[in-house]
Amino acid sequence: MTATLSPAQVRAAIQQYLLDALPNPEAARRPELALYARMLRDYPERGGKMLRGMLLVYTGLAYGAEVKQLLPVAAALELFQNWALIHDDIEDASDERRGKPALHKVYGVPLALNAGDALHAKQWALLIEAGVSQAVLLEFVRLVELTAQGQHLEMTWMEHQRFDLQEADYLEMVGQKAAYYTAVAPLRLGALAAGVEPPAVFEGAGMKLGIGFQIVDDVLNLVGDPAKYGKEIAGDLWEGKRTLILLHYLQNASADERTRAERLLCISREEKPAPEVAWLHQRLLQSGAVAYAQATAEQMLTEGLGMLEPVLRTAPKAAIGAMVLEVLQSLVRREA
Amino acid sequence: MTATLSPAQVRAAIQQYLLDALPNPEAARRPELALYARMLRDYPERGGKMLRGMLLVYTGLAYGAEVKQLLPVAAALELFQNWALIHDDIEDASDERRGKPALHKVYGVPLALNAGDALHAKQWALLIEAGVSQAVLLEFVRLVELTAQGQHLEMTWMEHQRFDLQEADYLEMVGQKAAYYTAVAPLRLGALAAGVEPPAVFEGAGMKLGIGFQIVDDVLNLVGDPAKYGKEIAGDLWEGKRTLILLHYLQNASADERTRAERLLCISREEKPAPEVAWLHQRLLQSGAVAYAQATAEQMLTEGLGMLEPVLRTAPKAAIGAMVLEVLQSLVRREA
Repeated sequence: MTATLSPAQVRAAIQQYLLDALPNPEAARRPELALYARMLRDYPERGGKMLRGMLLVYTGLAYGAEVKQLLPVAAALELFQNWALIHDDIEDASDERRGKPALHKVYGVPLALNAGDALHAKQWALLIEAGVSQAVLLEFVRLVELTAQGQHLEMTWMEHQRFDLQEADYLEMVGQKAAYYTAVAPLRLGALAAGVEPPAVFEGAGMKLGIGFQIVDDVLNLVGDPAKYGKEIAGDLWEGKRTLILLHYLQNASADERTRAERLLCISREEKPAPEVAWLHQRLLQSGAVAYAQATAEQMLTEGLGMLEPVLRTAPKAAIGAMVLEVLQSLVRREA
Repeated sequence: MTATLSPAQVRAAIQQYLLDALPNPEAARRPELALYARMLRDYPERGGKMLRGMLLVYTGLAYGAEVKQLLPVAAALELFQNWALIHDDIEDASDERRGKPALHKVYGVPLALNAGDALHAKQWALLIEAGVSQAVLLEFVRLVELTAQGQHLEMTWMEHQRFDLQEADYLEMVGQKAAYYTAVAPLRLGALAAGVEPPAVFEGAGMKLGIGFQIVDDVLNLVGDPAKYGKEIAGDLWEGKRTLILLHYLQNASADERTRAERLLCISREEKPAPEVAWLHQRLLQSGAVAYAQATAEQMLTEGLGMLEPVLRTAPKAAIGAMVLEVLQSLVRREA
């Protein structure tokens, strides 16, 4: 029966499970706590694609788990994403998220930071209350720790104005900051929630797919449709993010252009001159750096899917294994 | 044998367990990750009294647990305190912690915020890797969630310039923000780690003791010895904290004084005139508000200990129960 669940149904079920776990503003004893409940529900209610949760659910189903075992784990993974985004938006001084002002722009940094902590606790609460196995809990430990470490790498590079970075540095950083929780962990958690030891290939294939996902994100940040993207276009340039696109451009730019670009990237967001940001934006597009990144992402996707296909074809429920591949395609080939 | 462990030995054992769980800068693969390790170890290495961990260990020993079952739980509780302080210091824009600059003052808000998240994950990692019971994990869920909710209450009062607050509001806020994790949770966790259902009185008595602890903290913020206190003296006034002392003063002040004080408290930290802060500091001392708070704390301590004594006297290891009472005394009757 569960084999027939459509992606829209899975998404709705995860969303419902997640929102049911959060406090209800109308049940709050004090107006301050109604505000608290609204803050905790804010990012989750903005929706999001829930691709990670869906990937987890379909993987779990392919390995024989029941939906009801998988929903708390998928909802916890989506909660992780939500609290991490609240904190990232503060750390990066981002203005927008999912088409609306970032949480700290609406409520200020102190309350938003604390709401992120509360959602972090709620992530663990969902797992613990559902009585998931120690293996599932340990996988969450790993994904939260790796994400924080990758986030640290990226931020130190900006804070310490580092430009001596190679493509390998980017891949290491983004593997930790994004790829692990985006693809490796959902695949592994699906199997673990089904009580199965995850195939070793989930790690390598998930890394490629997750890195491909992040590179697509970096590309969309520069070329995305503002109506669909949900975040500030070229926000990465304002923030000085060391993307694959930027590193490739810097390595291939003339000495003059490189100096001009690096000087711009060292200036704090508030003081960056808009015409210079527009210049760099144009140069990234014209120089072929964006096209290079797109080709890299495409290759990562192809390789990752190629590694996964034979394994998923032999999963206990191979028909659902095909759904996993479909979700993974939409993870990388997307417009927002 | 464990009955003979001195408070100094217990403190050292918790500290060692905690530091062993954190990354080692010298083993880091990259300089950025050595920095990361140093940041994660920074607050824990500053020491702290570890009274909560000690309370937990002695309670657990009194109920028949082994030290080795208790250390991961106590170390996790101390890790909770450390990440919560990193985030609180950002939220409150505090300058100092344990006699040194606050973490975000040294490394900036983005890296410090992320280090707090990493320690939050490590708190759960300690518990999960030690394989503690679901009951212990659920108690941690409760203590993190209550602390975040209490923190939210306190911050909204400052942010929304609320002065329409009664003593009952303060007690509710501080019960959640500080008393639960300071006294209720350590008592309950000690019993739970021993596999015993905690006596119901732990909740009521712990609340009184924990609130007493926080009131003493508020008092020390105004009258403490700067060499021992470790935080900025009168920092609560600069930050506009709604303490019992302040609320009692406002309720009993003349209309003129109340207006003058409220006007000062509405000004942001950076723009507060130092002479006005000094004036309010003096008035809190002279008006009897500090003395009132001291008397309240003393009463809370007496009542809380009175409620706990008969229960701890009948604990499986009553001799260690006496140590619990001793730790609790030092929790409230202290100079720093």
